[in-house]
Amino acid sequence: WVPQRARPRRNRKNATMRGMVRENIVTPSNFIYPLFIHEEDYNTAIPSMPGCERHSLENMLKEVGEAYNVGVKTFVLFPKVPDELKTNLGQEAYNPEGIVPRALRLIKAAYPDSIVCTDVALDPYSDQGHDGVVENGKILNDVTINQLCKQAVCQAKSGSDVVAPSDMMDGRVGAIRDALDSEGFTDVSILSYTAKYASAYYGPFRDALDSHPGFGDKKTYQQDPANGREALIEAALDAAEGADMLMVKPGMPYLDIIRRLKDATPLPVAAYHVSGEYAMIKAACEKGWLNEKDVVMETLTCFKRAGADIILTYYAKQAAQWIEQDGLY
Amino acid sequence: WVPQRARPRRNRKNATMRGMVRENIVTPSNFIYPLFIHEEDYNTAIPSMPGCERHSLENMLKEVGEAYNVGVKTFVLFPKVPDELKTNLGQEAYNPEGIVPRALRLIKAAYPDSIVCTDVALDPYSDQGHDGVVENGKILNDVTINQLCKQAVCQAKSGSDVVAPSDMMDGRVGAIRDALDSEGFTDVSILSYTAKYASAYYGPFRDALDSHPGFGDKKTYQQDPANGREALIEAALDAAEGADMLMVKPGMPYLDIIRRLKDATPLPVAAYHVSGEYAMIKAACEKGWLNEKDVVMETLTCFKRAGADIILTYYAKQAAQWIEQDGLY
Amino acid sequence: WVPQRARPRRNRKNATMRGMVRENIVTPSNFIYPLFIHEEDYNTAIPSMPGCERHSLENMLKEVGEAYNVGVKTFVLFPKVPDELKTNLGQEAYNPEGIVPRALRLIKAAYPDSIVCTDVALDPYSDQGHDGVVENGKILNDVTINQLCKQAVCQAKSGSDVVAPSDMMDGRVGAIRDALDSEGFTDVSILSYTAKYASAYYGPFRDALDSHPGFGDKKTYQQDPANGREALIEAALDAAEGADMLMVKPGMPYLDIIRRLKDATPLPVAAYHVSGEYAMIKAACEKGWLNEKDVVMETLTCFKRAGADIILTYYAKQAAQWIEQDGLY
Amino acid sequence: WVPQRARPRRNRKNATMRGMVRENIVTPSNFIYPLFIHEEDYNTAIPSMPGCERHSLENMLKEVGEAYNVGVKTFVLFPKVPDELKTNLGQEAYNPEGIVPRALRLIKAAYPDSIVCTDVALDPYSDQGHDGVVENGKILNDVTINQLCKQAVCQAKSGSDVVAPSDMMDGRVGAIRDALDSEGFTDVSILSYTAKYASAYYGPFRDALDSHPGFGDKKTYQQDPANGREALIEAALDAAEGADMLMVKPGMPYLDIIRRLKDATPLPVAAYHVSGEYAMIKAACEKGWLNEKDVVMETLTCFKRAGADIILTYYAKQAAQWIEQDGLY
Amino acid sequence: WVPQRARPRRNRKNATMRGMVRENIVTPSNFIYPLFIHEEDYNTAIPSMPGCERHSLENMLKEVGEAYNVGVKTFVLFPKVPDELKTNLGQEAYNPEGIVPRALRLIKAAYPDSIVCTDVALDPYSDQGHDGVVENGKILNDVTINQLCKQAVCQAKSGSDVVAPSDMMDGRVGAIRDALDSEGFTDVSILSYTAKYASAYYGPFRDALDSHPGFGDKKTYQQDPANGREALIEAALDAAEGADMLMVKPGMPYLDIIRRLKDATPLPVAAYHVSGEYAMIKAACEKGWLNEKDVVMETLTCFKRAGADIILTYYAKQAAQWIEQDGLY
Amino acid sequence: WVPQRARPRRNRKNATMRGMVRENIVTPSNFIYPLFIHEEDYNTAIPSMPGCERHSLENMLKEVGEAYNVGVKTFVLFPKVPDELKTNLGQEAYNPEGIVPRALRLIKAAYPDSIVCTDVALDPYSDQGHDGVVENGKILNDVTINQLCKQAVCQAKSGSDVVAPSDMMDGRVGAIRDALDSEGFTDVSILSYTAKYASAYYGPFRDALDSHPGFGDKKTYQQDPANGREALIEAALDAAEGADMLMVKPGMPYLDIIRRLKDATPLPVAAYHVSGEYAMIKAACEKGWLNEKDVVMETLTCFKRAGADIILTYYAKQAAQWIEQDGLY
Ligand SMILES: [Zn+2]
Ligand SMILES: [Zn+2]
Ligand SMILES: [Zn+2]
Ligand SMILES: [Zn+2]
Ligand SMILES: [Zn+2]
Ligand SMILES: [Zn+2]
Repeated sequence: WVPQRARPRRNRKNATMRGMVRENIVTPSNFIYPLFIHEEDYNTAIPSMPGCERHSLENMLKEVGEAYNVGVKTFVLFPKVPDELKTNLGQEAYNPEGIVPRALRLIKAAYPDSIVCTDVALDPYSDQGHDGVVENGKILNDVTINQLCKQAVCQAKSGSDVVAPSDMMDGRVGAIRDALDSEGFTDVSILSYTAKYASAYYGPFRDALDSHPGFGDKKTYQQDPANGREALIEAALDAAEGADMLMVKPGMPYLDIIRRLKDATPLPVAAYHVSGEYAMIKAACEKGWLNEKDVVMETLTCFKRAGADIILTYYAKQAAQWIEQDGLY
Repeated sequence: WVPQRARPRRNRKNATMRGMVRENIVTPSNFIYPLFIHEEDYNTAIPSMPGCERHSLENMLKEVGEAYNVGVKTFVLFPKVPDELKTNLGQEAYNPEGIVPRALRLIKAAYPDSIVCTDVALDPYSDQGHDGVVENGKILNDVTINQLCKQAVCQAKSGSDVVAPSDMMDGRVGAIRDALDSEGFTDVSILSYTAKYASAYYGPFRDALDSHPGFGDKKTYQQDPANGREALIEAALDAAEGADMLMVKPGMPYLDIIRRLKDATPLPVAAYHVSGEYAMIKAACEKGWLNEKDVVMETLTCFKRAGADIILTYYAKQAAQWIEQDGLY
Repeated sequence: WVPQRARPRRNRKNATMRGMVRENIVTPSNFIYPLFIHEEDYNTAIPSMPGCERHSLENMLKEVGEAYNVGVKTFVLFPKVPDELKTNLGQEAYNPEGIVPRALRLIKAAYPDSIVCTDVALDPYSDQGHDGVVENGKILNDVTINQLCKQAVCQAKSGSDVVAPSDMMDGRVGAIRDALDSEGFTDVSILSYTAKYASAYYGPFRDALDSHPGFGDKKTYQQDPANGREALIEAALDAAEGADMLMVKPGMPYLDIIRRLKDATPLPVAAYHVSGEYAMIKAACEKGWLNEKDVVMETLTCFKRAGADIILTYYAKQAAQWIEQDGLY
Repeated sequence: WVPQRARPRRNRKNATMRGMVRENIVTPSNFIYPLFIHEEDYNTAIPSMPGCERHSLENMLKEVGEAYNVGVKTFVLFPKVPDELKTNLGQEAYNPEGIVPRALRLIKAAYPDSIVCTDVALDPYSDQGHDGVVENGKILNDVTINQLCKQAVCQAKSGSDVVAPSDMMDGRVGAIRDALDSEGFTDVSILSYTAKYASAYYGPFRDALDSHPGFGDKKTYQQDPANGREALIEAALDAAEGADMLMVKPGMPYLDIIRRLKDATPLPVAAYHVSGEYAMIKAACEKGWLNEKDVVMETLTCFKRAGADIILTYYAKQAAQWIEQDGLY
Repeated sequence: WVPQRARPRRNRKNATMRGMVRENIVTPSNFIYPLFIHEEDYNTAIPSMPGCERHSLENMLKEVGEAYNVGVKTFVLFPKVPDELKTNLGQEAYNPEGIVPRALRLIKAAYPDSIVCTDVALDPYSDQGHDGVVENGKILNDVTINQLCKQAVCQAKSGSDVVAPSDMMDGRVGAIRDALDSEGFTDVSILSYTAKYASAYYGPFRDALDSHPGFGDKKTYQQDPANGREALIEAALDAAEGADMLMVKPGMPYLDIIRRLKDATPLPVAAYHVSGEYAMIKAACEKGWLNEKDVVMETLTCFKRAGADIILTYYAKQAAQWIEQDGLY
Repeated sequence: WVPQRARPRRNRKNATMRGMVRENIVTPSNFIYPLFIHEEDYNTAIPSMPGCERHSLENMLKEVGEAYNVGVKTFVLFPKVPDELKTNLGQEAYNPEGIVPRALRLIKAAYPDSIVCTDVALDPYSDQGHDGVVENGKILNDVTINQLCKQAVCQAKSGSDVVAPSDMMDGRVGAIRDALDSEGFTDVSILSYTAKYASAYYGPFRDALDSHPGFGDKKTYQQDPANGREALIEAALDAAEGADMLMVKPGMPYLDIIRRLKDATPLPVAAYHVSGEYAMIKAACEKGWLNEKDVVMETLTCFKRAGADIILTYYAKQAAQWIEQDGLY
């Protein structure tokens, strides 16, 4: 017998006790399910994201329904835009008959109490492959903001519940808030990509939407992975500008940032479990090196533990199905 | 022109400015390089960890030398023990002529100012595949501690600079400290696996050492991934018991825990970038879905940002070589 | 239209939205139900605590059953001891045939998966009306501890799941832990009254057990209401001595202390909603000045919000019944 | 002798030592004394608040004088407005010859260095019994703000030192600040009801002013008792909008919120010890279940300890008298 | 042998180990070098600041060059203005042919990648010896701001990289930011004197520039040394108004404020090691009571440890020379 | 008029308002007055500490009386020991007829309710000029502790109220606590020099006691000025070992450490305003470069603001006299 007073293993001694002291659980209501959509009437597989597809609008509705049935009721739409509609100013972004407005109307009509979020950013519409209007190799901040405001208002008019600016232009949250309010949309929420890092984990997403930067990189607007304090600057600004929720992207490599935002701001925090993270799990599991269900459910639990109230994940439907089968993890 | 005062992009406008405000850097001196060793006189590849091998002692020395030349001067040894030497009590763990004591003496003789760490745990020596002595399906806490004390003293006698108990038995840090001190080894440091989680990311490591649990799981001693506050209980106890450094394992899925430990304790914090994390990157890069160098260097930067002073990574030598070629990231 | 960006009322606009952003809920599993017991075979009303009674053992079992059926499964026992059994040393406290051991055995036999907590303190057994052995008007610390250790071991032998020292003698948690462990009760938990204040809110409880101090006050051992930092000293010591849960008493007037303990320690935090708080609500509601159900459920919610994982309240059964009727608050 | 090192009872051993380590004291200068006023020339008792009365203006001056003489020099006025003056827009609120402006001029003339605070809110003037203008059952935010601005300016012109908006409309602090400044009142301070909860503890106050909500409840503007983080959102906004002091209401059930605001903002924090809290103490003391002086002075000490720099309490005069008699508590 | 587990001396046992655990280092790139300039063509010694001189523009350039060669590349200019150019409105402050614009152009021409900061304040130009325009003995806040805006724009036009308002008028950071932006200088940074205290340590600086207050003191705008929370109010406002870096002044007597700002804001923090601090070291060393190099290098290390990213010090060149000679401290 | 909402200057507008918002005050009861004593029957001036003297015991009593009369009632004694009494083991430190025990008895007899603290350390008694017993150039930790225990017990027997170990040997607080308790001195307090830095600011003190290190430096036991986290390790250990108060030394260059200790531990924090700090002020004031009263009172205020509850300063008597003359600062 080794004298000692505290024995933390006392709280792990069996499954019941571990259940009693569990600090966090994951439920389907924590998820936002990202859906890729395109103008075709068939689905297209995305090789670097096995199990994900670009959906036709019809199939998108079916996918929404399946997710809805297992408790995932929040969605975010990412369109693949034909090259011929892309311009430097990305005007297609606020075409009221564009693919996103149509998709919005379809989902809200079929599932009125779903929550549909829409991406506010120019890159799917840009012939430069950047998140902003380009001039002499520079990404123009304030010109871009004006485009984003038009895009957000267009989405609000088509029924978007939450607009989600993903571009990291300075001041775009406040400008979008003003634009929405002046059109009477004071009830539309803003989910801001507050701390979006210039990361190597985005590759497969860009494959999915064919949206790789046309030149250079995104380091003049996205954050440096080496920086944590900088995310708190962004968070304070977004809160002051009227953001309702703050997002960190990517997710797992930035769990500490999620924790810091959760501690530093009273707003809800979201995390984006990005394409590269998804691709890594898929690749390792295909080879039999990891167990997919175990790794995925642990990983999503880690997001909650880090402080994420909301998780955007390509595994949303699958994880909800596993929860339905197996009970809460 | 959109009126706004703070413009965080001002600090990202070009590479020079980004350099000025970078909050963290990674250097080879942050790394601990884990080395698998076995009794054979040849190396054996580990399929689920491409690029890693179980080394013969001779090759181990060569690997140490290569890492040393690019600035990685700290190592930790993990032995594969032949099945015939495994017992429930794991007595081979404190055989002064065992593979670890011999390896220690070799490295310290050849590289006297290297720092060699040794794993204190029974699982490589256990015929039960558990981190403790087993009785009626239970992992005995205090009996195990007594074995660990003998193992730690044996390693100290063979020249270990840092003993690293990885087992999560309650009270083992204090007991090992007392055992070391009573033998005069007050200068040998303890790197405690403070927050070691019951994770799905360990599979490939267990492949490497052929040390899968013989029955059940490790949830009665390793932490539940859902728990963050619990890690602070462990940290407070380890500090009080005399640990010199605290480790979190796995790494990336637990970056928030690294941050919380760094904030809650004044001790240095280490992170273990585990086999499953390594395997995922390798698998995705083999398929061409991610860029290995970019993803690895970003990931190691994320560990530093989260608060890790020390990173155990299978990429230690490779990352140091990239740093040598490209300059600091 | 008044230009402004953040509008917190957006999150309060209707019941659904308020439900989505609610930060805390109260459930019956958060409660510990205190039960007064005596040696009589009838119940006795307690005038200053309308609705509370000293129970005969038979009625105690019935009360346990009723609470159990609405989800309250944790109890704590407070005995009224006949004057003739009271002594300065309080030896009756560890009489294995005393009222508490008998009550324990009854409850655990009838409701084996209930959790029964027992009060470790001398005051119900003291002819001095103090929490410690008295000598020359002083409350002797270390002599008292020895008595408490005997009491705790006696309770553990009778089936206590959790011993709860309520006396504020220095060092009693560690001594009780050692005593329990040396008798093999490493699995019995300790709920420490960590921050027990010298409060004017205890009067009715002392009426209930006829345990008013025989002389002087309790200020040489209970905390000064003016002090908050001091509670953190006590919390650190209790954690180091092996407490599993930390309690603050009284509750509502010390909600800030609950918050500080929750932030400063990773252990679970309990709060005692004391007799004086209960009496105030009862008195005001009798007069029709407050609505009892509304005030009680709000108050219990406040405990959760402040950080209490566990609430000891005389309203436990009643609140659980309200929850059953009305759904979660 | 039980070996142990820290002994916190060392600091409690006698009254002198307890005095040395006391962390907080309460003084009359911490109090704001709320005064109910009406147009009658006699006082009217308020049954649910024994000891409190609606004062005639003449008696109000006398009450101010008595409080002033024991060191309470700050007051806040709450008028009972005759029903025939109540409207949906509450125009009486900015009648320069209304009861509040007249009361202000009386007090400031007689006690020029007193500090007189005035309530900025529509509910005493509303025929709807709400804090805002009502339209189709909704409480209109921005229309209400415009009325509040007129009310605040009217009060400033009559000599108010501190205007105290108590209504929880979004953005009213900033709008009032702008209105005051544009009229040259940059030196008039704002004490914002930052975290005002939808509480069951307000009943007796509404009795006092006959201001119960005409329909529904106040949950679309007052905060949910379950929420703590939400108070930090309000605090950040009020600070940015120019509030000089932040108030939490009610007091005792929200002591943790006081602590969190004190830690999260550098502004002074005030607490409102509300009518329901007052009524509970009175009711329990009338029955002889609690000792009034002990309970009141402990409770006020708890407010200071929680972090309140300023306490609004109906006990202000009485507590100051007790302090004068007995010395500081 | 005294049993004990943690032994912090383990980390101090020799110089190598101390090097490993050192938490902070000082490098020349942390320094900003303040330079006094005047219109004469010779240098003038400043008696109360031995080793410092008011430089002619020619010698200033030489001094810049010497500092630059040891790694100090950032400077801040303080002009002595002839009495005949001083007015209440300080119009000379924005004379494009004034001494500061000329000095700026000289340095930027000779050392284009140096960073030159300029003081934004009226006191060197004021015939009242105050930091603001005076009217009836009052320092006018908003009138002063307008002058500061003109001064900042004038400096930006002459090449200033960083404007540094040192006056503590409310709202001047935001107004300067707006003025700079509206002239197209969105890339010019603002280093705000966020927490400038009304200190007795400024005497020798005022000797250097002959800028003692003409009447009264500066307590209506500079902070009270007794206040720490107040600095956080200023920091939050400056951040919201667009400051890029926050300064604390003086330095050593306010190291705790540096720490609090570093913890409370994500912006970089600067510290001003002021003239009085410099004079004290010089005086004590002249007498042989302290060792200058040891005391200075320790003191600068203390600034870094407290959280200063940037140190304004008259020892900048000297310290950089010592670092060059002796290696990093 | 420049639109802005918060105006911090509102709280500085005149002396009354500044008084209302002042966060800290300094009173004589915050001071501990250090007294140098020697065996001579006359006083000897200390050149590097103008105004300080080594006192004869008779004059010491007179000095105590003068300080006592202005409210300074706490003292700490530092003896100059004749060289012929110095040894490596420093046995004179526990001579019951040594100078410190005699001085203690004199003061406690004349001023029974003063608090007299005594330095526990070997350096004044060591012929090596070190704080510990020396062997082969090493400072022996545990051998030294045994000597310190004897010294502390000897002082307690002579009436010391507070023993103050100043040596930084590991584990000496706990060992002294055990030694005192086992002799029945559970009521004697320990003021630990928790964070004593290897500083260049100690020179004049060593002049005063003729106690310069005989060889080398003190870096193997005193802390590195570059380290802040390390102080928190020491603080946690001292608290666990039973220290009642924690001291930081030196004072002004370590104000951030005072803040961090105050935030990280609930114990009272003391600061030592050391000889070098004193000498600097004296030297600069002699030259007329600073105003002594202003600089000293500001500096002491800074200690309080940083978090020091207790200040050891050679200015104790002088500052108390200034406070008596001028009122509180
Ligand atoms: Zn942003
Ligand atoms: Zn552990
Ligand atoms: Zn205790
Ligand atoms: Zn608000
Ligand atoms: Zn300011
Ligand atoms: Zn120590």
